[in-house]
Amino acid sequence: MLINCVAYKDGHKLADIDVEAISDYVERGDCFVWVALRDAEPAELAKMQEEFGLHALAVEDASRGHQRPKIEEYGDSLFSVVKVVEQHNDELVVGEVDIFVGPNYVLSNRQNSRQDFLGVRARAEHEPHLLKQGPSFVLYALMDAVVDRYFPLVDAMESEMEALEERIFSKSAQRDNIERLYALKRKVMTLRHVVTPMLDAVGKLHGGRVPSICDATQDYFRDVQDHLFRISSSLDAIRDTIVTAIQVHLSMVALEEGEVNKRLAAWAAIFAVLTAWAGLWGMNFKSMPELDWKYGYPMALTLMFSTSYALYRRFRKAGWL
Amino acid sequence: MLINCVAYKDGHKLADIDVEAISDYVERGDCFVWVALRDAEPAELAKMQEEFGLHALAVEDASRGHQRPKIEEYGDSLFSVVKVVEQHNDELVVGEVDIFVGPNYVLSNRQNSRQDFLGVRARAEHEPHLLKQGPSFVLYALMDAVVDRYFPLVDAMESEMEALEERIFSKSAQRDNIERLYALKRKVMTLRHVVTPMLDAVGKLHGGRVPSICDATQDYFRDVQDHLFRISSSLDAIRDTIVTAIQVHLSMVALEEGEVNKRLAAWAAIFAVLTAWAGLWGMNFKSMPELDWKYGYPMALTLMFSTSYALYRRFRKAGWL
Amino acid sequence: MLINCVAYKDGHKLADIDVEAISDYVERGDCFVWVALRDAEPAELAKMQEEFGLHALAVEDASRGHQRPKIEEYGDSLFSVVKVVEQHNDELVVGEVDIFVGPNYVLSNRQNSRQDFLGVRARAEHEPHLLKQGPSFVLYALMDAVVDRYFPLVDAMESEMEALEERIFSKSAQRDNIERLYALKRKVMTLRHVVTPMLDAVGKLHGGRVPSICDATQDYFRDVQDHLFRISSSLDAIRDTIVTAIQVHLSMVALEEGEVNKRLAAWAAIFAVLTAWAGLWGMNFKSMPELDWKYGYPMALTLMFSTSYALYRRFRKAGWL
Amino acid sequence: MLINCVAYKDGHKLADIDVEAISDYVERGDCFVWVALRDAEPAELAKMQEEFGLHALAVEDASRGHQRPKIEEYGDSLFSVVKVVEQHNDELVVGEVDIFVGPNYVLSNRQNSRQDFLGVRARAEHEPHLLKQGPSFVLYALMDAVVDRYFPLVDAMESEMEALEERIFSKSAQRDNIERLYALKRKVMTLRHVVTPMLDAVGKLHGGRVPSICDATQDYFRDVQDHLFRISSSLDAIRDTIVTAIQVHLSMVALEEGEVNKRLAAWAAIFAVLTAWAGLWGMNFKSMPELDWKYGYPMALTLMFSTSYALYRRFRKAGWL
Amino acid sequence: MLINCVAYKDGHKLADIDVEAISDYVERGDCFVWVALRDAEPAELAKMQEEFGLHALAVEDASRGHQRPKIEEYGDSLFSVVKVVEQHNDELVVGEVDIFVGPNYVLSNRQNSRQDFLGVRARAEHEPHLLKQGPSFVLYALMDAVVDRYFPLVDAMESEMEALEERIFSKSAQRDNIERLYALKRKVMTLRHVVTPMLDAVGKLHGGRVPSICDATQDYFRDVQDHLFRISSSLDAIRDTIVTAIQVHLSMVALEEGEVNKRLAAWAAIFAVLTAWAGLWGMNFKSMPELDWKYGYPMALTLMFSTSYALYRRFRKAGWL
Repeated sequence: MLINCVAYKDGHKLADIDVEAISDYVERGDCFVWVALRDAEPAELAKMQEEFGLHALAVEDASRGHQRPKIEEYGDSLFSVVKVVEQHNDELVVGEVDIFVGPNYVLSNRQNSRQDFLGVRARAEHEPHLLKQGPSFVLYALMDAVVDRYFPLVDAMESEMEALEERIFSKSAQRDNIERLYALKRKVMTLRHVVTPMLDAVGKLHGGRVPSICDATQDYFRDVQDHLFRISSSLDAIRDTIVTAIQVHLSMVALEEGEVNKRLAAWAAIFAVLTAWAGLWGMNFKSMPELDWKYGYPMALTLMFSTSYALYRRFRKAGWL
Repeated sequence: MLINCVAYKDGHKLADIDVEAISDYVERGDCFVWVALRDAEPAELAKMQEEFGLHALAVEDASRGHQRPKIEEYGDSLFSVVKVVEQHNDELVVGEVDIFVGPNYVLSNRQNSRQDFLGVRARAEHEPHLLKQGPSFVLYALMDAVVDRYFPLVDAMESEMEALEERIFSKSAQRDNIERLYALKRKVMTLRHVVTPMLDAVGKLHGGRVPSICDATQDYFRDVQDHLFRISSSLDAIRDTIVTAIQVHLSMVALEEGEVNKRLAAWAAIFAVLTAWAGLWGMNFKSMPELDWKYGYPMALTLMFSTSYALYRRFRKAGWL
Repeated sequence: MLINCVAYKDGHKLADIDVEAISDYVERGDCFVWVALRDAEPAELAKMQEEFGLHALAVEDASRGHQRPKIEEYGDSLFSVVKVVEQHNDELVVGEVDIFVGPNYVLSNRQNSRQDFLGVRARAEHEPHLLKQGPSFVLYALMDAVVDRYFPLVDAMESEMEALEERIFSKSAQRDNIERLYALKRKVMTLRHVVTPMLDAVGKLHGGRVPSICDATQDYFRDVQDHLFRISSSLDAIRDTIVTAIQVHLSMVALEEGEVNKRLAAWAAIFAVLTAWAGLWGMNFKSMPELDWKYGYPMALTLMFSTSYALYRRFRKAGWL
Repeated sequence: MLINCVAYKDGHKLADIDVEAISDYVERGDCFVWVALRDAEPAELAKMQEEFGLHALAVEDASRGHQRPKIEEYGDSLFSVVKVVEQHNDELVVGEVDIFVGPNYVLSNRQNSRQDFLGVRARAEHEPHLLKQGPSFVLYALMDAVVDRYFPLVDAMESEMEALEERIFSKSAQRDNIERLYALKRKVMTLRHVVTPMLDAVGKLHGGRVPSICDATQDYFRDVQDHLFRISSSLDAIRDTIVTAIQVHLSMVALEEGEVNKRLAAWAAIFAVLTAWAGLWGMNFKSMPELDWKYGYPMALTLMFSTSYALYRRFRKAGWL
Repeated sequence: MLINCVAYKDGHKLADIDVEAISDYVERGDCFVWVALRDAEPAELAKMQEEFGLHALAVEDASRGHQRPKIEEYGDSLFSVVKVVEQHNDELVVGEVDIFVGPNYVLSNRQNSRQDFLGVRARAEHEPHLLKQGPSFVLYALMDAVVDRYFPLVDAMESEMEALEERIFSKSAQRDNIERLYALKRKVMTLRHVVTPMLDAVGKLHGGRVPSICDATQDYFRDVQDHLFRISSSLDAIRDTIVTAIQVHLSMVALEEGEVNKRLAAWAAIFAVLTAWAGLWGMNFKSMPELDWKYGYPMALTLMFSTSYALYRRFRKAGWL
């Protein structure tokens, strides 16, 4: 679905143009065309391929979707895949934005994503001194918008981790904790598999040999990569913490089990002693003098409860009870 | 076993040719020969070595089989080993395709694999504008076909992983879960040991210094490598998830054991109290006044069951029962 | 908030100058200006940007804060972010110092940090032979001060680790130990996430291609990096030790549980034997000759206690009791 | 001990020569000398050093033994250490072959190894077209022979691993399994510590800058390295599998313990109920009407066994019994 | 404390010289000065800095101590820190040797180390053909002596590891084993943190770009690095083994616990049966015909012991007893 198709000159909007007219504007050389698609049909992509002269392999990747984040050079144009990640009902949903950038055009195709990028275009149109840097600035602006949307996800994960940490050392809801740790790990990994290849890809747009389109905007891409580094190191920290937390959880479970065992053992001992005394005087020997004593029974009761109590005190002191 | 032996010119089939005639066509220089073998005998390979002038070490590797995936340069020709992986009855079976590529020929030998590559040839013959790029395009087409067959395997592994994840947190079939996690890990490792070296090998066919044969088809090989990257990162994700799942599994088992222990302890306590009361009044002291009371027995029963019930309530509240 | 604004010439203080006058001094070329800010407001930063001609992206990073440690080149000037870490009540608090360095100026902005850097300026002013090396020496002096403050944190972590190690092998306070190990791990990770990127960043200031400003002061930055390496390897050692300690802790808990189990089993056995004897003679069979014996009861007691004692000795020998 | 000392020209044996004559042949320039030693005495090595003009450090390494696998250049000659690994009685024994290669000579010294390399010489002498490539071909042939002897060891380890995998999931012989896993891990590590440095070393003999002696035989060394890669990745796979197997083993032990615990708990419950009933009617209250009923006893028995049976059925259904 | 101060020419000792005279000899250019200090005071170091013209940063590092092993270039001189490790009472004590090397001098300062390096000087003076290679040979000789002292430590660790391995699979002294494994891990890590940075540092003295002082002695430093590699890979092997051993230990503890549990369960079952029988016949029902039988009691005893024995046999067969 076509969303926008606009020609820009010196950072200012020239006109909304027709799809048919794209190739004319692209050939003029003094302006550039910025087209935004959403969940484009093969036919639309084919039309765009024709108008912009896109490389067959890039178009094939874009129409198939489910690519890794990447930036590929085809002659003097770039094909870039970035991933948008959105949280719907405690699940991370991964969508994709495919961006074709040439000397005189930018074509973006958003797939499987609810959030649009209209704000990026609006902001760019308000900053003509930046927009006049051309298509590579648009590429930067789109990437920056995508990456900025990762931060709240990472923040949410960090909060979740902190909430879980407090619960690990309490004794309740252990089963729930481990399930939530596991779910958090999955989310971290989903985001990491989006961020890590993008980090490599953006790294090719500044520093050493850089595609000629991006030569003048290197500092911007270094900035994007820096944001990705920050996200990546936060994710690594969470991941590392989860691993430790699972280990610690196991230790805590073992410790608690040990405590329950000790308490069980202590009570078992106390009742075993009681039962032993009772069994003793429940025997049917003819000649058991204490049974005939007048105060035999109270004495027996005293003995039973005092041995029990002595044991109880001892276990209490040892920390078993 | 010889499957096909065809000469092509400008992307179009010239003729099915005789093995004897191969060297003539190879020497013509305006066409190329594409030979497909299957589980070739040493004699067949020797014949091919003679016709194509293959390098002795490459032929030795091909006749021995069980090589690592690799791409080796011998002068201006390439020797490439790729692995085909097929699922037979819940087992991954690894076969091999050895591909010799020279300026004017492609020779492939498929070993220990049920699936053929006739479709690759058919598709290539329908796209003469691509096929006329020569032997390196055929190499790409074969590799692409091999790699495309990895995707359904990875998808199946991901589904299996998801199925297992749901079961880890349920209490049933723990032993089966751990066996299936282990089996899945093995499969992931089998595929990884096929994909990782291939990733390195294909990386040599685009980017920096590239064998001269593949110079014009670099973008295709970058595409293959990109697919391999995608597979590789999916495999890494599954592998990482399995490791966590095994840890979590251990925690779940420990948790469940702890719960069983607590329940056991609770019931043991309840019955220990009952038994202690019964033991008390089972003693044979002469003078135990309560034994002679009229409502001694009902009173005793009430006491026994009310202490039991009080304990039961308390354990219930503590979550032990 | 402006803290200082001073111009230096040949290592000696020229004058405290007005913010307005900064650009005049910067343009003179024979002196340099060193400005220190604290938690600067956007307006202050904008003023500084104008006076020093700072790059927009760098200023944006500085005003947003929460950057990774980094050193970025913008033309012939540097933008550097270093992190200060302070311990407040058993928590590590991470602040930030943003440093802009140009051929004739240094501008530092300290954020979220209690400790000032007045000492750095004082020391520098007492060593004019060093200070006359210009802005890059100031950059070094600030970095060195920041890094020197990491050492006591690392020392405290090492002491904590040693204290914990002694406690792991004792039987007490296991739950507390594991909590403290976990908390220590968090601290180590916090510091590591500050040190590691800084290590990479400082590495760019000596050795290979070096920003021209730092050319003459390379040895100083090598020294800073060397300190960071030392901290980093200490942190790695602590981290590695914590991982092992958690594993060992789990082993110790399992061992102790095993010992409790054995003791429980031993006592249970002893009482089970007693109870069995008592049960035997508590049966109501008419004809049980031993019940009528004169010394039946003492004999029974002897038997009961001697079997118990024999068991006790045996368990003692086996190390269960 | 001297084993052979032969001069070769154009790939054909010239003559068995005297040790004294070595230097004469080495200086001729149109032939090369291939000497094989075994567990050479210092005196023999000193003699060889003199005849061949070997470097002092290399000779010192060779006489001390216990080197890491390595290939070192000394001027235009090479000193190579490779490790031979042999299985004696379920133990891996590591021996060493030190090889000195110069433009006109090869000197090998085999230490602490039972297997000889006579076959290598025999085969080389039967292939003069290969042998005439000179000393570097001999180096290749020796290395290839050494590496080929690693494969059966790896195969044996893989078989052992497969045998162990089947046993982990059975309930028997757990202690033996874990001991065998541990022993296997040791073997894998022994071989890995032989293979990994050799991989690095051989990598220097092909590809980038190559010692001039090996220039013409690069493809052969690439082949050796490829074999080493194959072994190395097999070893990594086994090692990875062992780690998982130990984890899984622990899970299996915990699971089995849990099952035993449940069964124990179930039986304990059944007997506790029985004992409670018996205790009830063993009390000595005067007025317990059911004791006087005619069918009191059979009724009691029925009650006791039916409650027990009901519990038994319930535990059976829950999978505890 | 000054230990020696000697001037050498052409590998032969010229004279023991005065500290004051050092600068004269250093300036002569045809000889070199080798000074050895021990735990030098700041004043001594300042004196040396003056005589030799040492770099301020290097002297500062040397006077502070506790540096990482490193080799740093300051103009045409080197500053090298190596660590000496000594075993005192089952503890590893880490000392330090700081070595300053210039074209005409070597200055070593040993700190916190009991062992001296007099032997190195003695040996060097007996080999003038080597010593005449100048200060870089002395640097090599000192490093070689330091590294040679690591080997017995590694050997002791390997022996300790082997001793521990045999004990893990026995059932005794589990707590002691885990403590010793932990202590061994600490020692391995101490040595590793000494060896790893030294490996990197020495690597800069041979191969690619080498400080001009060491140009002629590269092969020696390659030899030192090779020794360090050997030590490093041994340490890695021990470390890896310890990790596995701790895991295995946990498995063994769990296994043993499982066995104790089973035995406990078996005995509990046997006595529960006995107690149940006794409870049955201890009930006070009026009409219990078997109680009145003449052989009721012997029959009961027979029943009790035969059921117990049957259970005993069954548990024995199942391996629980």
